[in-house]
Amino acid sequence: MGLRFRPVDTSFYDLLTESAQHLVTGASLLAEMLAEDADHDDVARRMREAEHNADETTHAIVKKVNSTFVTPFDREDIYALASGLDDVMDMMDEVVDMILLYEVRLLPAELSGQVEVLQRCAELTSAAMPNLRSMQSLEEYWIEVNRLENAGDKNHRRIIAKLFSGEFKTIEVLKLKDITESLEEAIDAFEKVANTVEQIAVKES
Amino acid sequence: MGLRFRPVDTSFYDLLTESAQHLVTGASLLAEMLAEDADHDDVARRMREAEHNADETTHAIVKKVNSTFVTPFDREDIYALASGLDDVMDMMDEVVDMILLYEVRLLPAELSGQVEVLQRCAELTSAAMPNLRSMQSLEEYWIEVNRLENAGDKNHRRIIAKLFSGEFKTIEVLKLKDITESLEEAIDAFEKVANTVEQIAVKES
Amino acid sequence: MGLRFRPVDTSFYDLLTESAQHLVTGASLLAEMLAEDADHDDVARRMREAEHNADETTHAIVKKVNSTFVTPFDREDIYALASGLDDVMDMMDEVVDMILLYEVRLLPAELSGQVEVLQRCAELTSAAMPNLRSMQSLEEYWIEVNRLENAGDKNHRRIIAKLFSGEFKTIEVLKLKDITESLEEAIDAFEKVANTVEQIAVKES
Repeated sequence: MGLRFRPVDTSFYDLLTESAQHLVTGASLLAEMLAEDADHDDVARRMREAEHNADETTHAIVKKVNSTFVTPFDREDIYALASGLDDVMDMMDEVVDMILLYEVRLLPAELSGQVEVLQRCAELTSAAMPNLRSMQSLEEYWIEVNRLENAGDKNHRRIIAKLFSGEFKTIEVLKLKDITESLEEAIDAFEKVANTVEQIAVKES
Repeated sequence: MGLRFRPVDTSFYDLLTESAQHLVTGASLLAEMLAEDADHDDVARRMREAEHNADETTHAIVKKVNSTFVTPFDREDIYALASGLDDVMDMMDEVVDMILLYEVRLLPAELSGQVEVLQRCAELTSAAMPNLRSMQSLEEYWIEVNRLENAGDKNHRRIIAKLFSGEFKTIEVLKLKDITESLEEAIDAFEKVANTVEQIAVKES
Repeated sequence: MGLRFRPVDTSFYDLLTESAQHLVTGASLLAEMLAEDADHDDVARRMREAEHNADETTHAIVKKVNSTFVTPFDREDIYALASGLDDVMDMMDEVVDMILLYEVRLLPAELSGQVEVLQRCAELTSAAMPNLRSMQSLEEYWIEVNRLENAGDKNHRRIIAKLFSGEFKTIEVLKLKDITESLEEAIDAFEKVANTVEQIAVKES
């Protein structure tokens, strides 16, 4: 909560980077939640905290956009980035919340693959944000996130097929399908951020 | 159907208010549908009528936008408001239709909480529309709708967890989950309208 | 794959028509997949090929937009059309993939009605694309697609009600519901294309 003492001259690039770093934290809490002996209540509590911190950063960006006369790139693009990053956090928070609320104890190992995709996306996004300043090396980032989203999509369909295979009780299928779909939406949300970055880069070039 | 005799000088503000008032009707029909001794066929018939009236208002707005040279605010914002209000009606109509078609007789009491949120959103929206003229007192409206959406979201997750608790037959869980999700989409649709109003207010200020 | 030898002077109208023609192929493969004695693996393989060809056309359009100084209508509208057409293909590909992966053997006859709607939408869309040049006869197209989408929507709700009637095993309901919903999303995606065409026509008129 040290955010309250944010120095006034923090740049848009710093704030967007900070926002993406919250996603690295969120993705790693998600990985913790999936571990076999996880303390669901404790991880969920820390996730709520991370989500709250992410919200503060989002508000700081919006406030800065509204109070700044000349922004480094289009106002609406900064909004789109900030809210895109915020959406990822919300999706990851939702997954953790579902695992807690639905009292799911046995998660199929395949879900870890999706969380690894999320962790990789979070690292790539957080490394890409500072590059918005120079508009350099962004192409590799958005290509790689699109590739990861494709892999995640294939993985997703296979997990659903497995859930439908008859191996699980139907009520468990319902719970796990919800969780699996929210994981995929989180990956999609990362792709949306990457697409926004691509559009900004194309405009600025 | 007296709409046919709509006087030619009805303002955009009047039409948007009329559109939001249809949502008050819709939300109250939804509450009727959930009552224990509801005549599902009759309520569904009246809901179809309300939805049809709402469509007429939406078309009147679109027609007026297309035939008016100077609109009070951006053409696309009026479209966004009109179609946003129309989306809420469609979602509420869908819920009533589902309850009828799926032949659900026992609805968990928690669903009433979501319908109360919808009724409150409808009243707030209908009270806010005339204020678009002066752009006054709109902030309380969108803040309150956002707060209600957050409460609805928490309520939603708890209802789903309850559906998954083992208390219901799995096929009933499927039906009730569909209905619960459509209720939440209706609340989200109200929030989208509120966000559109916020954007308009920020532009005009 | 003869697309590689695309002549340099192919117009935007030709490319959009080509894109819509891939949808005619896709819808007909979907119809094949639903036939009682379908070879699921073979149809799915041909669908992947059709989807790949559609992607090539989409990329050709995007490349042409980026390298053309004066486009026949707004750049973003061409993008919206190209990506809208591409979305339909993705949805139809997803349905075929689901039928294969979920190992569904018995599909309710009602699904054929939805595939017929898709086939009709594909034909209408493919016939409408060349008319973007003259902006003539487009209104019948978008009105008819909207009408088909409405019919598809009613059909959709009835299929879901049938799935929930107790006639099917719950796990089969889950599989068939997923497939039914993706069919409806494909129809919605056709409507979105028609709405984009309408917006372009209104702007140009």
